[in-house]
Parts: sequence; structure tokens; C-alpha cells
Amino acid sequence: MMNCLNVAVVGYGNVGRYAVEAVLAAPDMELGGIIDVIPYKLPGMPIVNDITQLEQKIDAALLCIPSILVPEIAPAYLARGIHTVDSFDIHGEKLWQHHQNTDRIGKEHNTVAVVSAGWDPGSDSVLRILMTAMAPKGLTYVNFGPGMSMGHSVCAKSKEGVKDALSVTVPVGSGLHRRMVYVELEEGADFQSVEQAIKTDDYFIRDETHVIAVASINELKDTGHSVHLERKGVSGITHNQHFEYRMTINNPALTSQIMVSCARAAAWRLKPGAYTMPEIAPIDLLPGDRETLLKTLI
Amino acid sequence: MMNCLNVAVVGYGNVGRYAVEAVLAAPDMELGGIIDVIPYKLPGMPIVNDITQLEQKIDAALLCIPSILVPEIAPAYLARGIHTVDSFDIHGEKLWQHHQNTDRIGKEHNTVAVVSAGWDPGSDSVLRILMTAMAPKGLTYVNFGPGMSMGHSVCAKSKEGVKDALSVTVPVGSGLHRRMVYVELEEGADFQSVEQAIKTDDYFIRDETHVIAVASINELKDTGHSVHLERKGVSGITHNQHFEYRMTINNPALTSQIMVSCARAAAWRLKPGAYTMPEIAPIDLLPGDRETLLKTLI
Repeated sequence: MMNCLNVAVVGYGNVGRYAVEAVLAAPDMELGGIIDVIPYKLPGMPIVNDITQLEQKIDAALLCIPSILVPEIAPAYLARGIHTVDSFDIHGEKLWQHHQNTDRIGKEHNTVAVVSAGWDPGSDSVLRILMTAMAPKGLTYVNFGPGMSMGHSVCAKSKEGVKDALSVTVPVGSGLHRRMVYVELEEGADFQSVEQAIKTDDYFIRDETHVIAVASINELKDTGHSVHLERKGVSGITHNQHFEYRMTINNPALTSQIMVSCARAAAWRLKPGAYTMPEIAPIDLLPGDRETLLKTLI
Repeated sequence: MMNCLNVAVVGYGNVGRYAVEAVLAAPDMELGGIIDVIPYKLPGMPIVNDITQLEQKIDAALLCIPSILVPEIAPAYLARGIHTVDSFDIHGEKLWQHHQNTDRIGKEHNTVAVVSAGWDPGSDSVLRILMTAMAPKGLTYVNFGPGMSMGHSVCAKSKEGVKDALSVTVPVGSGLHRRMVYVELEEGADFQSVEQAIKTDDYFIRDETHVIAVASINELKDTGHSVHLERKGVSGITHNQHFEYRMTINNPALTSQIMVSCARAAAWRLKPGAYTMPEIAPIDLLPGDRETLLKTLI
């Protein structure tokens, strides 16, 4: 690889820590710095609380921050000439608005926004679309877990009176899930109010949700996760075509690795604008020349 | 969908028959005709032996012909202003040459060639690349079968003295396979010569191959097939990430459905040139507007 991308990690939390490792492990990237509001001290790594404090020119920023902050933060980087990769995990209308907005700002400033990069949304979205192209009629079920949902945990933790939270997703079949939400309460917090706030949030309202108070969240945390994606459908007029995909992974490690692969596509392959993962040719996620990739991986 | 693509099916064999069904089932396509050297008679469908005999303007041609004929036939269509989709299934250097050649001719004539569209190469290639982007270090194993391999059967059938042939792929683990090749011999054919010709062909030379003479191939045929694709690898510096994909499908029905989905990308989304499936954004395989797709499938 002739050139190296200079990549910044924004947010040094659950995903950000793994993102730093993934950037350092990538053959075509250098870590330009870490940006966080908390002044962590890491030997040999510049941590600043604002991108303007980094001395090097940054090509791409991995936004390892809560989804709710992404639509506000991404445009600031794009307008500064920095490609962004986020893992915005709210599906539907909000995703479309974020996509439209970053598409416009990216085109104005000659930058690329990869939105909703991760495994779901992300690589699972690619699989859902690929399976639909393979069997246009039929049903797809996505079964998550058992495993910790980062998005749901962040949501539960954001509620008043919650010191720390862990939301475990349990598959109950046919794409349905139970949410087991463990909360460590702040002193004097009212459990019933916390439970109500969690159960009525958009993140939880459609699922069977149980809220349980515990003494320490830290003792429960395991970032392993699983998914089982299945489709049975019709190719042409031929029925009974079966497809299934399973994975068992460390969640933040996979999310950040996918973000790193998407940063590569953003910097070297894609035209200005916004892209979800199914809008990116998969080969653009990999380093290396096209000839070698086509000869070895097709 | 405002416009309809006019699609021709070239070769009315194993895949071609299913391709006709898949084109007729597609919401955004019409069957412009079938082209074959054999004058089949099908009620209500124009079958001709040359594209110039079709009265309608054809937008895209699905080349449902043996791989060995594809590099010669595809350029003729591309040069005539017709997009092509083939399922060229010879990996490595020959694929790269075919890609380079159709890329040049497509660009000269403002047409798109989708090459090696099917499930392997094809959708499996997309999965191999996606899994590599998710865990850049590690091993991928592709296990086929049990099931009939169309490419290998066509190859065996092409040997002198073979009236009909069926090659069944049996997975023996770790991406290794046994080839069980059933041959119906022509009168007076020498079994040893046939066996030798098959075992030394590029298609078979790397695998454990058994050739068995039978009275009738027709009694053995079942177009069901399976694949099990697995990768265990490293995301960032986190080991033990497991991914697996399985499918159980009717082989020609899936191959032709994928070719139909690729014809859509060729006609409406891709710029002139040649593309394998991993070079196509997966969302371009589906009909429908971007907003609806992003809101429902991401």
C-alpha cells in the first residue's frame, strides 16, 4: 500500500477502545488521534477534546459515540473536509433523515459519510438485501443474542436515576426478542420510575422487556454476541430456497473492525455523499489491488 | 416501476429454463425472447437462433451457456449495445482476462457486463469478501454439497464418448471435496479414456474424483445443492470471531434468479464496464426506490 490513511477515533468508550486497536492493526492506516471530552491518559497516543487540537491532517473519523449524538456530530466533521463513519443504529425514518442530511453536506464539502456501519445495521443489512435478491419472495427472520446490546444498554443508562445499565437480548424465535435490562441505580433513585422510563422508550417499547435492579453492572458485562439470520423464499417460481447466516462475535470488536473497513471505502473508493453498507460495493471494504482480489476471492 | 427492461435469455438449457421463469416473475422485466441454436417450440415465446431475428430491442441478455463459450459470446452482445450477465465459473487468471476484456468492450460500446454472477462465484464471493472485511485475519472454508455441480457436469459431458454426465460434489470438510462423476457412455466408448479425460481436466484435477458408468443419467438428476461457508478470524486484535453461512437451494433456480437481479443493476445502476458481484453495491440488485429500501431493509 503506497499511502496511509490518517484516522481519528472519536469517543473512547466501548467501541472506541476496540476501534483504536483495529486502526493500528490495519495495513493501510495510521491512528491520527483520539478525541473525547474525558481527558484519558494513554502512553504515546494523543487524546484531545476537539479535532482542532490535533496537529496532523485527519482523513477520516470513526464516530464511536452514542447514536443519538451522531446526526449532530457527523456534519461538523464532514464540513471540515473529514470523511466520517458512524454506526447510527436507529432504523427507519431517522436513518433516512440522517442519510439525506449527511449526503447533502458531504457533497457540498467533497467528503463521504458512511452511515449505520456495524453489524446490524451494517453487514446484516447487506445479508438481508443479498438474500432478498436471491429469493425475492419470502420471509426473513433476524434473531439476536443471547448477548449485550450496546444501543439498548446506552439507552437504559441514559435514564434518570440509572448509574449503569446492561441490556441483554435473548432470542425467542421468529425474529422476536426478550430484553433483560439490568440496572445499577443511583442513590435514592426510584426503581418504578426507571422501569417505566425504560419500558416506554422507543428502543424497548415493541419487545417483552424485564428490568432488574442489581448491585453492580460491572460484574455482569460480557461483550460476546450472536446473530442468526434466516430466509426461506422463492427464486423465480421455485419455492423452498433456504438461507441462513450465523455469527458469534465480540460485539465492539466487530463493530469497530467494520467501521475501519468502511473508512477505507470512504477515503479511496466512494464519491462524495452518504452511503449505508448495502450502497457500497463489498470489494471496496478491502485493501489491496483489484486484480489480486478478483483472482483470489471471487 | 415506470419502465420495464426487455431481457433475452441466451441458451435454453438447465439454467435458461429457470431464467425464463425468473424474468417473467420479475416486477420490472419483460421477456424479449429466447436465443438458442436448437429450435425449441414454446407456445407464446419467440425462440430464435440469433439475436438479430428478435423484433424487439433487447436491453440485457442473460448468457445461460457453458462457461467455456462465455468469453467469446459476451463481447458480441456488448458490442451490439446489449448489457450481458454471465455466470462464468472459472476462477483466477481466466476470470481476470474475461473481466478485463468485457470491461474494455463494454466501455467502448456504453454497455455493462456482469461477469461470474451466480452463487459461487457470485453471492458466495460477496460473503467471502464481507467476512474478510469483518475479520481480516483468519481462514475461510467453503464446503459444497452434497449436490450436482452444473459446471462440472457440463465439463464431464463435453468429453469424447460421453452421452450424458452428472457430477455430484460431496463435502469432506475443511473446504475439501470429493467429486462423484456419473457418466452415460456413447456406444463403443472406452471407459478408461473417458475416466482419464475427466480426472485430468482442470475442473477435477485438484479433487478426489471417482468416475462411475451408469445406464441412465436422467434417473439420477436432482438439482438441489447446499453450501456451508465458514470463517473464524480476528477483528482488530480480537480473536475467535465466528461466521457461518449455509444454504440449501435448487441450483439453476438460484443461479438464474441472481442473474436476473444482476441484470437490473447492469441496466439501471452501473456505469459501462465489467463487474463481478462484489463490485456491485448490493442494494442495486433490488427493484424499488432507495428511500423505501433504506427504511425497510437496513
